[in-house]
Amino acid sequence: MRRVALLPAMLIAVGNASPALNSSPSVAVPAGATPTSIVQAAKPAEWKAISADDLMIIDLKSGKRIVVQLAPLFAPVHVANIRALAKNGYWTGAAIYRVQDNYVAQWGNNESEKPLPAGVVAQPPAEYERPLAGLDITPLGSPDSYAPAAGYVGGWPVAYDTKAGTANLVHCYASVGVGRGLSPDTGMGGELYAAIGHAPRSLDRVIAVVGRVVSGIEHLSSLPRGTEALGFYKERTSDVPIASVRLASMLPDAERPRFEYLDEKSQSFAAWLHVKKNRRDDFYIRPAGGVDLCNAPVPVRRGR
Amino acid sequence: MRRVALLPAMLIAVGNASPALNSSPSVAVPAGATPTSIVQAAKPAEWKAISADDLMIIDLKSGKRIVVQLAPLFAPVHVANIRALAKNGYWTGAAIYRVQDNYVAQWGNNESEKPLPAGVVAQPPAEYERPLAGLDITPLGSPDSYAPAAGYVGGWPVAYDTKAGTANLVHCYASVGVGRGLSPDTGMGGELYAAIGHAPRSLDRVIAVVGRVVSGIEHLSSLPRGTEALGFYKERTSDVPIASVRLASMLPDAERPRFEYLDEKSQSFAAWLHVKKNRRDDFYIRPAGGVDLCNAPVPVRRGR
Repeated sequence: MRRVALLPAMLIAVGNASPALNSSPSVAVPAGATPTSIVQAAKPAEWKAISADDLMIIDLKSGKRIVVQLAPLFAPVHVANIRALAKNGYWTGAAIYRVQDNYVAQWGNNESEKPLPAGVVAQPPAEYERPLAGLDITPLGSPDSYAPAAGYVGGWPVAYDTKAGTANLVHCYASVGVGRGLSPDTGMGGELYAAIGHAPRSLDRVIAVVGRVVSGIEHLSSLPRGTEALGFYKERTSDVPIASVRLASMLPDAERPRFEYLDEKSQSFAAWLHVKKNRRDDFYIRPAGGVDLCNAPVPVRRGR
Repeated sequence: MRRVALLPAMLIAVGNASPALNSSPSVAVPAGATPTSIVQAAKPAEWKAISADDLMIIDLKSGKRIVVQLAPLFAPVHVANIRALAKNGYWTGAAIYRVQDNYVAQWGNNESEKPLPAGVVAQPPAEYERPLAGLDITPLGSPDSYAPAAGYVGGWPVAYDTKAGTANLVHCYASVGVGRGLSPDTGMGGELYAAIGHAPRSLDRVIAVVGRVVSGIEHLSSLPRGTEALGFYKERTSDVPIASVRLASMLPDAERPRFEYLDEKSQSFAAWLHVKKNRRDDFYIRPAGGVDLCNAPVPVRRGR
């Protein structure tokens, strides 16, 4: 048997021999379009730049780089803490010390008692959800297992409840949350984790979600799993050392990594979401007619 | 900051200081119960043994072992093929040659043209779904993004449609499917993949799902990601060699690995599913009131 391409190209456009699509009335979708081909054809104005203050760069001693987009829209106090920690070198000497399969990779200073830099709020409020008011949410349009509704706002995947008037950033693959002890502790932001398996949505509204990895998640997800309870590494020699954690805004302009996300209010996003629910390109046979919020993550690309 | 336990113990029971639960009428749940504590307290009669003919043992040359439970209930022709391939040493010299982040790890003979052993059906039917008739499904009781309903049968996670009268095995983390080319090829079973990220449910009813990894998924999910398109390794020297693939039934009785799953018709399963939807133990604050099918995988344990 020849090399079997087998699985649909998640990142690569495939052929367009498919029959014309039945587009939904308000969404124009070219025949044979794939999620990738739609993203590639999106106009420059449909992309939004991510602020350099919202990009946290984690450089491992191995030379690998992980970039996290922060979400001040949902967890302003935690994000302000994280920015202050980065600016003050709080994570110098920090490491990834926990990797639990199908769950999380976690980093920080672990067992050390480091003094907090000035301006860091030691006990932030529970920023697990926020008022729905003021958010212009684009609905996912498919059922959600955990909330009355799901959708997108400001480039983020959210769950919301129009009756309760609340919205929350959800845990998807690559989401970043704040480690904490038992309630009412919400964690001050020094210990962070990224989801590396099936979206741990049961943590929604239980932990502060503060962002998502936009580049380099594979450097976390492919790490050896810890052998101790909860995936902690047994020996400190197994820890994965971090060289530095900086905001992009701390770097000279020419050295800053740049990222953009596809505006969920754009025509291309609408077409992309439609096709995510209704794949009709060559490999697919039966469109699902729906999609899970975490299987339709907002497209992100390197900025210019 | 001391070592932050941070995330709920997925595999470890935590304290029971929580208030008494509001159990649903038909489900008895002890106060402070966690999914793990319920599984640990399940009675022996609530566990069902997995047949030795349904266990495929993949031993890597590194000494690591992966065990896959096969699903003849859903893909009988593909599973019969896979058994015949294992019995005839088809995967001698095979390797894991593709690892795509948040998607799949894939193994088989890749580019070699190996003759098929006698009895292997070269072009199996499209076993992507089956009649609902004859299946006594236990409903999940939460909405599904991809199908009218979701639930469990025979220890498997399924989606179903009472109107169409069909049911299908779904893609969850660790699900195993059959690589194929473009339709009508369904793959004969020689190239297999396991899901190593967020459940790729858009592949449901598009590919034959033939089983799930019940042990050793971390040996696939932590492999280096391939750098080529679709996560293929660039060099054959990067491939992860397989020492042997055997059915448990091919081993002497004393050497067979044994596994059991928690019967979805048992009281303990009902209590476990209730608590999966409504965590009230110490770490959690707000029960979600629902759960995604793939975040409530049927409990599996080593058999006796």
